[in-house]
Amino acid sequence: MHPPVIGLDGDDTLWHSESHFVTTTARMVELLAEWVHTEAAQDHLIAVERRNLARFGYGVKAFTLSMIETAIEVSDARLPASAVQQIIDWSKELMDHPVDLLDGVAATVAELAAGHRLLLVTKGDLLHQESKVARSGLEGHFEGIHIVSEKDPATYRRILDRHGVAPADFVMVGNSVRSDILPVLELGGRAVHVPYEVTWALEHLDEGDLPGEVTRIDRLGDLPALLAAGLP
Amino acid sequence: MHPPVIGLDGDDTLWHSESHFVTTTARMVELLAEWVHTEAAQDHLIAVERRNLARFGYGVKAFTLSMIETAIEVSDARLPASAVQQIIDWSKELMDHPVDLLDGVAATVAELAAGHRLLLVTKGDLLHQESKVARSGLEGHFEGIHIVSEKDPATYRRILDRHGVAPADFVMVGNSVRSDILPVLELGGRAVHVPYEVTWALEHLDEGDLPGEVTRIDRLGDLPALLAAGLP
Repeated sequence: MHPPVIGLDGDDTLWHSESHFVTTTARMVELLAEWVHTEAAQDHLIAVERRNLARFGYGVKAFTLSMIETAIEVSDARLPASAVQQIIDWSKELMDHPVDLLDGVAATVAELAAGHRLLLVTKGDLLHQESKVARSGLEGHFEGIHIVSEKDPATYRRILDRHGVAPADFVMVGNSVRSDILPVLELGGRAVHVPYEVTWALEHLDEGDLPGEVTRIDRLGDLPALLAAGLP
Repeated sequence: MHPPVIGLDGDDTLWHSESHFVTTTARMVELLAEWVHTEAAQDHLIAVERRNLARFGYGVKAFTLSMIETAIEVSDARLPASAVQQIIDWSKELMDHPVDLLDGVAATVAELAAGHRLLLVTKGDLLHQESKVARSGLEGHFEGIHIVSEKDPATYRRILDRHGVAPADFVMVGNSVRSDILPVLELGGRAVHVPYEVTWALEHLDEGDLPGEVTRIDRLGDLPALLAAGLP
C-alpha cells in the first residue's frame, strides 16, 4: 500500500494568521471605545463579517471592509475619516506581515515531503496567499498549491481529480473542523485536526462536532509519527 | 496540423467590467466634488490604485479600498463616514452586478469550443471571478478556468504546462495588450487583440505598443473567421 497523499492547510496550520487578525481586532475595539464596549464591538464585527462573507469572501481585504463598516455602524456614522484611514493602514500591515511558521513546521513539512505527495490547500486573498506561500519557503515541497475561495466537498473533489488521487488515499490536515475536516470526510477521505491557539468565529464549531474517527494532534510535528503508526 | 488552443480573457473580453468601474468612478468624482475637480479626483484615484497594486492586487475590493483612500486624501480627512459607507455600498453593487456578456460572445465561444480546446485566463478577486464565470453560462465550454493574481509570462507558462500545450500551439485573445498579448508573445505564443470600449489606466499602453505581428479585431465574433483563414 502506498503512503497517503497529504493535504495541508496554510493559515493557522503552517503559519500564524488568525492571531494577527485578533491583534488587529483588539486595535479596532480600542479605536471604537468611545462608542461601544469591547464585547459589543467584537460581536458587531463578527455579524458584519458573516453578512459580507458570500459577497467579499475571505482574507484581509474583506476583513478590512468589514472593520470599516463595523466602525461606521457602531459610531452611528460619527467616525472621523482619520479612523478609517487607520483601519486601512492596519490592513496594509497585515498584508506586509512576515510569514511566521508555526514551531517545527519547516522540518516537519520537509520530513513529510520525503515520504508523501503533498498538496497545499488554502483560502483567502489570491495575491496575499500566493505571497505567503512564496515567503514561507515551503513551496518546493508541494506537488500542488491550491488557493481556493471556499473549502467545500466540491473544491476538494476538484483538487483530488486534478492530481488523480482517490479520496481514500487522501489525508487532510488542518486547524479548521469546518473547512479542513468535515468536507474531506464527506468525500470519503481522512483528516487530522491540529487546533490552533485561536479559532475565528466564522470557522468555529463546538469541540463536540469533531467526528470520532478524526485524530487530533497538538502540533504538526506529531504527524509523521501518527502516519507511521497508521491512521485509523 | 491541429487547431491551436485558444486562451480567452474574461473581463472586457467576454463580459463588461471596466465600464462598471468607470460608472462607479464617476459617482466617486461627484461625491468628492466639493473638495476636488473631476480630473484631479480621477488622477488621484489612479495614483492610489497604482500605489496599492502590489499589496492589494486587482478586483473590486482593492478598487474600493483605493477609492476610500482617495476620498480621505482629497478631502484632507474631512470626508464624513456616511460617504465611506456610500463607497462600500457601491462595491457591493459592483459585486452583485449581473454578468453582461459582450455582443455575440455566447455564440462565438460555443463556435470556438466546437473546434478548439479553450482556456479562460482571468484576474481579479478569486470569489468574484468564480462567481462571474459561473453566471456567464460559458463555463462548460472551457477545458480549464484559471483565475490568477497577475498575467505575466510565468503565469502563462504554468497554465500551458498544466494543460500540456506548447506556446507555439497557443493563441491568447483579450483586450489588454499588457496582460493578454505581450507576456504570451514573450513565451513564443501568438495573440489576438480585441480592444474594449475603455481601458483602465493601469492596463493602458499606447496604440504604438501593439507588436506588428499581432492581429487586432473589432469584436470576438471576428475570431472564428480569422482562425479559419490562418493566423500569421
